[in-house]
Amino acid sequence: MAELLFWLAPIGSAAALLFAYLFFAQMKRANEGTDRMAQIALYVRKGAMAYLKQQYKVVGMVFVCLVVLLTFMSVVLKVQNGWVPVAFLTGGIFSALAGFFGMKTATYASSRTAQAARESLNKGLVIAFRSGAVMGLVVVGLALLDISLWFLILKAVYPIEESHNLVLITTTMLTFGMGASTQALFARVGGGIFTKAADVGADLVGKVESNIPEDDPRNPATIADNVGDNVGDVAGMGADLYESYAGSILATAALGASAYLGTSLQFNAVIAPMLVAAVGTLLSILGIFLVRTKEGATQKELLSALSRGVNSSSIFIMLFSFGIVKLLGLPIGVWWSMVIGLISGIVIGKATEYFTSASFKPTQRIANAAKTGPATVIIAGLGVGMMSTIVPVLSVVLATVFAYLFAADFNLGNVSAGLYGIGMAAVGMLSTLGITLATDAYGPIADNAGGNAEMAGLEKEVRKRTDALDSLGNTTAATGKGFAIGSAALTALALLASYVEELKIGMVRIGQTTMKMADGFQVETAKAGFMDFMSYFNVNLMNPIVLVGIFIGAMMAFMFCGLTMTAVGRAAGRMVDEVRRQFKEIPGILAGQAEPDYARCVSISTKGAQHEMLLPSLLAIIVPIVTGLVLGVGGVMGLLIGGTSTGFVLAVFMANAGGAWDNAKKYIEEGNMGGKGSDAHKATVIGDTVGDPFKDTSGPSLNILIKLMSMVSIVMAGLTVAFSILK
Amino acid sequence: MAELLFWLAPIGSAAALLFAYLFFAQMKRANEGTDRMAQIALYVRKGAMAYLKQQYKVVGMVFVCLVVLLTFMSVVLKVQNGWVPVAFLTGGIFSALAGFFGMKTATYASSRTAQAARESLNKGLVIAFRSGAVMGLVVVGLALLDISLWFLILKAVYPIEESHNLVLITTTMLTFGMGASTQALFARVGGGIFTKAADVGADLVGKVESNIPEDDPRNPATIADNVGDNVGDVAGMGADLYESYAGSILATAALGASAYLGTSLQFNAVIAPMLVAAVGTLLSILGIFLVRTKEGATQKELLSALSRGVNSSSIFIMLFSFGIVKLLGLPIGVWWSMVIGLISGIVIGKATEYFTSASFKPTQRIANAAKTGPATVIIAGLGVGMMSTIVPVLSVVLATVFAYLFAADFNLGNVSAGLYGIGMAAVGMLSTLGITLATDAYGPIADNAGGNAEMAGLEKEVRKRTDALDSLGNTTAATGKGFAIGSAALTALALLASYVEELKIGMVRIGQTTMKMADGFQVETAKAGFMDFMSYFNVNLMNPIVLVGIFIGAMMAFMFCGLTMTAVGRAAGRMVDEVRRQFKEIPGILAGQAEPDYARCVSISTKGAQHEMLLPSLLAIIVPIVTGLVLGVGGVMGLLIGGTSTGFVLAVFMANAGGAWDNAKKYIEEGNMGGKGSDAHKATVIGDTVGDPFKDTSGPSLNILIKLMSMVSIVMAGLTVAFSILK
Repeated sequence: MAELLFWLAPIGSAAALLFAYLFFAQMKRANEGTDRMAQIALYVRKGAMAYLKQQYKVVGMVFVCLVVLLTFMSVVLKVQNGWVPVAFLTGGIFSALAGFFGMKTATYASSRTAQAARESLNKGLVIAFRSGAVMGLVVVGLALLDISLWFLILKAVYPIEESHNLVLITTTMLTFGMGASTQALFARVGGGIFTKAADVGADLVGKVESNIPEDDPRNPATIADNVGDNVGDVAGMGADLYESYAGSILATAALGASAYLGTSLQFNAVIAPMLVAAVGTLLSILGIFLVRTKEGATQKELLSALSRGVNSSSIFIMLFSFGIVKLLGLPIGVWWSMVIGLISGIVIGKATEYFTSASFKPTQRIANAAKTGPATVIIAGLGVGMMSTIVPVLSVVLATVFAYLFAADFNLGNVSAGLYGIGMAAVGMLSTLGITLATDAYGPIADNAGGNAEMAGLEKEVRKRTDALDSLGNTTAATGKGFAIGSAALTALALLASYVEELKIGMVRIGQTTMKMADGFQVETAKAGFMDFMSYFNVNLMNPIVLVGIFIGAMMAFMFCGLTMTAVGRAAGRMVDEVRRQFKEIPGILAGQAEPDYARCVSISTKGAQHEMLLPSLLAIIVPIVTGLVLGVGGVMGLLIGGTSTGFVLAVFMANAGGAWDNAKKYIEEGNMGGKGSDAHKATVIGDTVGDPFKDTSGPSLNILIKLMSMVSIVMAGLTVAFSILK
Repeated sequence: MAELLFWLAPIGSAAALLFAYLFFAQMKRANEGTDRMAQIALYVRKGAMAYLKQQYKVVGMVFVCLVVLLTFMSVVLKVQNGWVPVAFLTGGIFSALAGFFGMKTATYASSRTAQAARESLNKGLVIAFRSGAVMGLVVVGLALLDISLWFLILKAVYPIEESHNLVLITTTMLTFGMGASTQALFARVGGGIFTKAADVGADLVGKVESNIPEDDPRNPATIADNVGDNVGDVAGMGADLYESYAGSILATAALGASAYLGTSLQFNAVIAPMLVAAVGTLLSILGIFLVRTKEGATQKELLSALSRGVNSSSIFIMLFSFGIVKLLGLPIGVWWSMVIGLISGIVIGKATEYFTSASFKPTQRIANAAKTGPATVIIAGLGVGMMSTIVPVLSVVLATVFAYLFAADFNLGNVSAGLYGIGMAAVGMLSTLGITLATDAYGPIADNAGGNAEMAGLEKEVRKRTDALDSLGNTTAATGKGFAIGSAALTALALLASYVEELKIGMVRIGQTTMKMADGFQVETAKAGFMDFMSYFNVNLMNPIVLVGIFIGAMMAFMFCGLTMTAVGRAAGRMVDEVRRQFKEIPGILAGQAEPDYARCVSISTKGAQHEMLLPSLLAIIVPIVTGLVLGVGGVMGLLIGGTSTGFVLAVFMANAGGAWDNAKKYIEEGNMGGKGSDAHKATVIGDTVGDPFKDTSGPSLNILIKLMSMVSIVMAGLTVAFSILK
C-alpha cells in the first residue's frame, strides 16, 4: 500500500511540470504587442540571460572545486558516502534549472502581459499570474523529481527491508540539499546585488537628480533595473524556495527514518513528507485555475481573486493530508504538526501584510514621520521593522513547540518523533508552494509589464491597469517574503535535528565506536538515544564551546548583511557614475533624441554582482567547516542555532522595514502628506532607497545563509567528528 | 592571611570615595566664570536635577512593587531567601546614588571647565578629567562598599567554616545585582530617550530648518540638549557600569564558592574578584594623577595623555593581581583568565576606534557615500556597523574559550572552575573601570563646557579648546561604549553560569530532592555536578524548548530596540512641535531679542522620557519571569543566551554605526567633501540624526537588557523550579 502511495510523488512532479509547460506555451501564444514592446522585452530578456550565463559560469567553477573536495572526502578520507558528490551536483543543477525556466518565462511574459492589459484587466491578470505559476510549478515539480529519482535509485541499491538502510538513504539524499543551497545562495546574493545596484543607481540619478519618472526610457539604467527584477526577484526567489522546499522534505524524511527505526511505520514516515508535498502540488494546480477576476475589478477584488486560489488550496491540503496520514497509519499528531505549520505560515503572511501595507498604522506612521524629514523616516522604519519581528518569531515558536508536542511519543520516550513533527510543520508550511510562489513571481512580471508599457509609451489606461496588478504584487511579495523566512527558520530547525543523524553516520564511518552509550553502536547507529548523543558531544548550554558557537552564529548573520549591504553600495556607486557619464557624454539623451547605452549598464551591474557575491557566499560555506574543525560538534551546533535565531529575526526585520518604506512612499504618492514631489515624498524616497537592499538583497539572502550553513555542516559532519581539534 | 587580605576591598572602596570627594571639592573651588556662564550652568543643573527627581519617583514606585513581590516570594511562597528584598533595595539605591553624584559633579563642572579653558588647555583638561574621575571613582567605590558590607553582614550570620554557607552567601549577594540592573535600565532607557529627543528635536528645527548653529542660545531646546548629555551619557552610563562592575564581581564570587566547594581554596576564590577590583581601584587613582598635558597640545598629545593614565593602570593591575592570585594560592590559570579579559577589553576598544574614527577607512567611506546623498550614507553606515561586529565578537569568543581553558581543572573534571575563569575575565576587563569610566564621563563634561562657552558668547579661542577636548571625548566615548558592551557580554555569560547555582539553591528550598543525581542532594547541593544538573533540566540544543527560548531571546533584543527607537521618534516629534511653536509664538527669539522658554523643553523631554521608558523596561523584567513560568528552566536559559548573543551583536552594531555617522559628519565639517553647508554635509547630518538613538539610546540600553534579564532569572530561579508549567 505505502509502496504504491509513494508513486504519488513522481505523479505530482509530472503533473506540475506538465502544467508548467502548458501555461508557458499558452503565454507564448499570446500577442506580444507592438514592435517597440517586443524590442524592449528582448532587451530585458537578453540582459537577463547574459547575466544568468555569467552567473552560472562563476557558480560552475565553485561547484567544480566543491565536487573535488567532496570526492576527496569520500574517496581518500572516507568520511563521506560515495554518492555525496553526485547528489550535491544534481541539487545544484536542478536549482539552477528552476531559476532558468522561471526567468525565461518571466522575461517572455512582460510584454505579453502589457499587451493583454491593453485589452482587459482580467486578461492581464491571467497572463501574469499563469506565467508566475510556471515558476511555482517548475520549482515544486523539479524538487519532487529530484527527490523521487534519488529515492528510487538508492532504494534499488540498499534494500529497505534492512531498517538501517532507510536511515542511510535519507541522510545521503539530504546532501543534495547542499548543492541546492549553494546555488541558491549565489543566485540570491548575486541577483540581489544586481537588482539593487541597478535600482538604486537608476533612482539616484534619474528620479532624484534629473527628475525623470521611474521606468523612463531616457534613463540608461532602466533596462538594467527591469533585468534586475527578473534575476533577483524571479530567479533568486525561485532558487531560494526550491531549496527550502527540498530541504524541508529531505530533513523530515531523515528524521522519520530515525524516529521510527525498526518499526513497521518507518517507510511510511519517510515517504509522508513527500506525499504531503505531492498532494500539495496537485491541489496548487487546482488553485491556480481558480484565480481570475471580472473586468474593472478593484484592488480588493484582485486580492480576493488571488486569495481564493491560495485559500482553497490550503483547505484541501489539510483535508487530503489527513487522509494520507491515516492511510499511512502514522499517529494523528503528525497531521496536527503539519496543520500547525500551515497555519503558522498564514499568520506570518498576515502579520507581514499588517506591518508593510499602507492600509495599516505602522506604514502610515512612517509616512507621517516624513513631515520632519528623511532622518525620522529612517528611524520610524527601523522601529517598525524591529517591532514586526514579534509575531513571526512567536508563530514559529508556537509552531515548533506544538508540532513537537503533537508528534512526540512521550510514552516511548521517543524525542526523535517530536523532532520529526517539527519537520512536518515545515513541510506543511511549504505544501502550498506551487500556488504561493505563483502569487509571488507574478509580482515582478506585472512590474516589468508596467515598465514595458511605460517605455513603449502605451496608453495611460494600460499603465493604470499594470499599476493595479503591480501594487497587488507588492502585497503578495511581502507575504511571500514572510513565508520564505518563516519556512527557512523551521527548515533550519529540522536540519539541525538531521545534523545529529548525520553525526551518527559519521561516527560509524570513521569507526569511532568507543562512545559512552555505544555497545553495539556500529550496528545500531540510529537507535542511540538522542539525549545520550547530546551528552556525549556535550552540547548543553553551559559548555562554553556551545556558547561561543552561538555568539559566532549571531555575528555571522550581521557580518553577512554588512557585506551584502556594502556590496550594493559599491555596485550602485559604479552605476551612478555610469549614468551620470552617459547623461554628460551622449548628447540628447534627456531630450529623448538619443538612445542611451542600456547594455553597458546591464554589464556593469552584472560584473558588480559577480564580483561582490563571492566573498559573502564563500564565507557561508567556509565558516561552518572551519568552526567544525576547530571547535567541534558543540561549536557547530552553537553556530547553527545562533545563526538561525539571529538570522531569522534580522531577516524579518530587514524585509519588513524595506517593505514598509516602499509602501510609505507609495502612500504619499497616492496624494497623502502633500503627494508626489513634496518634501515628505522626497524623504520617503530616501527611505525606500535604504530599504531596497534591506528587502531585496540582505534580508532574503539571510534565509539561504541559515539553511546553507546547516547543509554544509551536515555534509561535513564526518569531517568534523574525524578531525576536529576540540572534541 | 586571606581574611586579612579581604580588607583590601573596603580599603579600596574608602580610597575611591575619598579621592572622589577630593576631586569634587577641588573642582567646586575652581572659578565658575562669568555670571552668564554660571547662569547657564544653573539652568542645566536645575533641569538635570528635576529630571532625576522625576525619574527616581517613577523608579521608586516600580521598586515598591518589586519589593512587595520579592517579599511575597520569600515570606509566603518560601522560594526565596529573606535577605533578597533588602539586598535588591540596596542595589537599586547605590546605583541611583552613583548616577546622582556623577551627574551633580558633571553639572557643576561644565562652566568651570569652560572657565579653565579660557586660561589654558591643560587646566581645562585637568578640571574636566578629574570631574569625570569623580564619576568613575564613585561607581567603583560604591560597588565595593555595597559588596564589602553585605559580605561582612552575611559572613557574621552564616559561619563560613561550613563550606555550603559560602555558596549561600554569594548567591544571596548576587541578588543585589538585580536592584542595580533594574535601576540602571530605567536610567539608561529614560536618559537615552531624554537626551535623544532633545538632541534630535533641537537639530531638526534648529540646524536644519532655521539654520542656526549647534548650542545656539536662540534654540529653545538647547538647554534640554545639554541636560540630556548629563542624564543620558553621565548618569545613564554610570548606572550601567556600576551594574556590570558589581555583577561581574558577584557572579564570579558565586562561581568561585561553587567551583572550590569543600576545598581549602573556597574562601580565597570567593574574595579573589573583590581583591582584583580593589587593587584595580587603587591603581586607577594612581593613573588619574598621570593625566595631564602641556599647553598647546595637539589632539594626539591629548589622547596620549589619557592613554598614559589608562595604560599604566592596566599594566600595574596585571602585575599586582598576579601577586594576589599567588598570595591566595589559587591556580595561576585564574590570573591568565583575568589577563585575557583585560586584553580583550583593550582589543575591543581599539577595534571600536578603528570603525568609528574619521582617521580610518570605514568612517571615511561613509563620508564618501555622502556624494550620492543621504540614502547611501545610511546604507554605508549600516554596513560599517554590521562589519564592526566581527572583532568584538571574536575577542569575547577567544576570551571566553581561553579563560575557560586556563582556569578549568580538567584532571578533577572541575568544569565549574572553568566557568569561574570566565567570570574572572569579566572582572579583569572591568578592573580598570575607575579610570576608563573617568575618560568616558569626561566627554559629556567637555561637550557641556563647549555648550556653555557658546551660549555665554565666550572668545572663539575657548570654543576651539573645548572642541579639542570634546573631540577627544568622542573617541574615548566610542572606546568606552565598546568596553561597556564587551564587559556586559562576558558578565552575562558569568551570570548564566551563576543561574545554575541559584537553581540548585532553589531546588533545595522547595524540597525537590528527588532528582536523578540527587542522593544526598539536599545537603551537598553545590557539589552536584554541573553536567548532571544540565541533563536533569535537559538544557541541550536538541530540546525544542531551549531552541524556542533562544528564538525568543533574539526577538527580545530587536523588540526592545524597536520600542526604544520609536519612543525617541515620538518624543523628538513632540520636541519639534514645541520648538516650532516657540519660534512662531514668541516673537524675537531668532533675532536674539527674546529669551526662549528653555524649561518647557526640558519638561517635555522629561515627561516624554518617563512615559516612554516604562514599557520596554517592564518587558525586560516580565518576559524572563513569564518564560520561566511557562517554559521552565530550559526556556529561560535559551532566552538568556539568545538575548545575550543577539543583544551583544546588535548593541555593537548600533553603537558603532552611530559613532561612525557622527564622525563622518565631523569629518566633512573639517572641510572634506565640500565642508559645512554642502549637500554632502546635509546628507551626513541626516546620518548623524539616525545614529543618535542608535548610539545613545537603543545600543547602550541593550547592555543592561541582557544583564537585567539574567539577574531577573537568577532572582526568580526558585519561582521557576517551583511553578513552571513545562519542566
